[in-house]
Amino acid sequence: MNKIILFTAFIFCTFFAKAQQQDSVQIRKIANEILRNSNAYSNLRVLCKDVGPRLSGSEGAHKAVLATAQMLRNAGADTVYLQPAMVTHWERGKPERAYAQVGKSNRSLKVTAIGNTVATKAGGVTAQVVEVRNMEELVKLGKKNVAGRIVFFNIKMDPTFIRTFEAYGANGAGRRKGPAEAARYGAVGVIVRSLASNVDDHPHTGATVYNDSLPKLSAVAISTADAEWLSKELKHQPNMKVSYETHCKMYPDVLSYNVIGEKIGTVYPGEIITVGGHLDSWDLAEGAHDDGTGCVQSIEVIRAFTALGLQPKRTIRAVMFMNEENGGGGAKAYFDSAKTKHENHIFAMESDAGGFTPRSFSIGAKGETQFKKLQSWLPLFYDYGIYEMHKGGGGSDIGPLAVLGTTLVGVEPDSQRYFDLHHAETDVFEAVSKRELDLSTVNMTALLWLVCEYGLP
Amino acid sequence: MNKIILFTAFIFCTFFAKAQQQDSVQIRKIANEILRNSNAYSNLRVLCKDVGPRLSGSEGAHKAVLATAQMLRNAGADTVYLQPAMVTHWERGKPERAYAQVGKSNRSLKVTAIGNTVATKAGGVTAQVVEVRNMEELVKLGKKNVAGRIVFFNIKMDPTFIRTFEAYGANGAGRRKGPAEAARYGAVGVIVRSLASNVDDHPHTGATVYNDSLPKLSAVAISTADAEWLSKELKHQPNMKVSYETHCKMYPDVLSYNVIGEKIGTVYPGEIITVGGHLDSWDLAEGAHDDGTGCVQSIEVIRAFTALGLQPKRTIRAVMFMNEENGGGGAKAYFDSAKTKHENHIFAMESDAGGFTPRSFSIGAKGETQFKKLQSWLPLFYDYGIYEMHKGGGGSDIGPLAVLGTTLVGVEPDSQRYFDLHHAETDVFEAVSKRELDLSTVNMTALLWLVCEYGLP
Repeated sequence: MNKIILFTAFIFCTFFAKAQQQDSVQIRKIANEILRNSNAYSNLRVLCKDVGPRLSGSEGAHKAVLATAQMLRNAGADTVYLQPAMVTHWERGKPERAYAQVGKSNRSLKVTAIGNTVATKAGGVTAQVVEVRNMEELVKLGKKNVAGRIVFFNIKMDPTFIRTFEAYGANGAGRRKGPAEAARYGAVGVIVRSLASNVDDHPHTGATVYNDSLPKLSAVAISTADAEWLSKELKHQPNMKVSYETHCKMYPDVLSYNVIGEKIGTVYPGEIITVGGHLDSWDLAEGAHDDGTGCVQSIEVIRAFTALGLQPKRTIRAVMFMNEENGGGGAKAYFDSAKTKHENHIFAMESDAGGFTPRSFSIGAKGETQFKKLQSWLPLFYDYGIYEMHKGGGGSDIGPLAVLGTTLVGVEPDSQRYFDLHHAETDVFEAVSKRELDLSTVNMTALLWLVCEYGLP
Repeated sequence: MNKIILFTAFIFCTFFAKAQQQDSVQIRKIANEILRNSNAYSNLRVLCKDVGPRLSGSEGAHKAVLATAQMLRNAGADTVYLQPAMVTHWERGKPERAYAQVGKSNRSLKVTAIGNTVATKAGGVTAQVVEVRNMEELVKLGKKNVAGRIVFFNIKMDPTFIRTFEAYGANGAGRRKGPAEAARYGAVGVIVRSLASNVDDHPHTGATVYNDSLPKLSAVAISTADAEWLSKELKHQPNMKVSYETHCKMYPDVLSYNVIGEKIGTVYPGEIITVGGHLDSWDLAEGAHDDGTGCVQSIEVIRAFTALGLQPKRTIRAVMFMNEENGGGGAKAYFDSAKTKHENHIFAMESDAGGFTPRSFSIGAKGETQFKKLQSWLPLFYDYGIYEMHKGGGGSDIGPLAVLGTTLVGVEPDSQRYFDLHHAETDVFEAVSKRELDLSTVNMTALLWLVCEYGLP
């Protein structure tokens, strides 16, 4: 049995090896160019240190638009333009403060307002706290136990998920719909344990979605270390009061831009291949891994094509999407434009999972034929760290294109460190490894080159 | 054709899936235990922060022996003991100083003495510098151009190697034998570009090996940033003099210990399975990734077995080897003891490539049968990030066991960040990700459990 299997595997490998030998040589050239001469890391330094935080509608966001447009020109894009997009404009205002009343003294708590939330009234909200470990507990407690109180969603990220994005999905309800659900039962405020995989002192923000038929509650995320403290303390002092104050405000949407740079296809200019990340970041940090890296990788794809003299057969378009974090205005504008212009988007790739070492591609294919075509290229990526292409989605900025029949691909780097710093002040340039960033870009560029060259059936 | 291949692949997968289902359940239990309750990270904190640097023969090394023996007891080892080993005792002495004479002023250079080197004479060595890019250039220059000068080995790590250890091997001759080779041509000193993958201000040390028939030259490693500067400056001022002074000294070997903790096999106690890392570290830093992580992972293997109530059928032995960095005394003592006692070492695993996210196992099998047996388990590791087992070696501490017929396995985590910090002051606790460390330990423990359970043919 074993011998037959091994023989078949050998034939199988030989078959692909021959077909892909030339592609393999080209991909090695791409890898060498990027690993030797990539600008992604130095561009990221500019985006993190010179531009800094860049929440939609902020001055930083506008600086980021101008800076990345220039980077795309330097990278040798045939054309660079700004695509108008109406985007969310939410501001944090003055820094938050929070404390717990322990006996006669106050213990300060590390919190940050959750994105898109309303402010507390002046002076803040002060109330007893009711802790829940999941949404079912909230329902069980009901109005009787929740009304007039602050709900503390102490939902931990389950460490047994190997792919941390799965824990982020499974354990993220507190932030995403906690404020809305707590309002249903008459709560006066919401504290959410930061969606973080480590225990430290840095609160992690992120957006929430209100239910328009219910009151809008102010809400803060608390650091995981303080969440542990608060939970423990509440066991001893269940009547302990907590106070917090936020000053945030939602303004009307404002005009901003997606930044786009293209290399026009030489043979099929009408077949469009998108590669992108999002340009906006939360206001707490430099938005290095989220998602400065996705932006500078997309720019580097253009630079690598230019440096290698690769004229793509199909049009490749690097897009810095605006407003991914708290509204999706950029994604909507990109989709609307594509639809209105009847553009033929055959393929789109999104890098919005950090600039870590490469591991896999997630594929939302138009059909099984496209999925198989992409998978047939997998052996070309083994040497560069990617061993897996599986079915899934592409990401929230390219997601809308699915209805146009676009095959979507999400870049999936190693996810172990991402939720230590995601949406927190620790997401800074220094947390990015140049080699990891470049190696992930190598894989992105290689797949994009294959699609440019061969198209998708 | 495609259909036949897919069908065979399906049969192939089903075949293994059934055979390995139960193992898969046990490995999931191991993973859950470690990801939830691992002590590796907190033990590493102790080793890095409370113990600190621990070069062989130093007070730190002795503290590390006592600390890890206690950790092994806490982890539930059946027996913990110290194995005597004669080890290298080299001391850096007072900090180094170095500068280049630029016109009438001196520009200081960031250097560190290379491990095991002799000191300069009092006042240091001052001479013109001759730069070489590889060993061939040194030979070509010959005595005529080298005598009386300082040789500057400016050999970069080639960034196009995807696995950085290959670049470390290919581009490491300057440090490993540069001082010996320069002496052959009458040089008076040696400056080696740090073996590092990034450009920064931190020099990286590491051992060199002298040629006993040639004079012993003092030697320093220079930071990569200063290597770049020096190279550029020498093009303008080829006669520029550089001065450096070191105070290091080699003392006679001293008595130290390997630290060993065992869980005795319940069925085949005489079949020994080793898992280890090295306890000594360079004196510049905390030795977090090199190799505190290998030590605390090995201890965690024991703890996980204990916590899960897994009584190994074969004896599993966690070993903290002393003196890996600059002598190998611990490895020799372990091998000598194994040989003298006629122990049956069926398997040994070494983790000495950093505590990063897991990627592959390198296998130095006794024979093809053992290699195939190990490879048949590979699908069990896909879920935990390991997609590859290939032929190779185990590591320098377990390496000597090969002559006893032991199958050796090297743990290969992702290597992109390792040579940013290897042997430099940046190799600190903060550079380790708890999740990456734990996930690598999951894979180690799973493979060790399989060997404990099934042995090797």
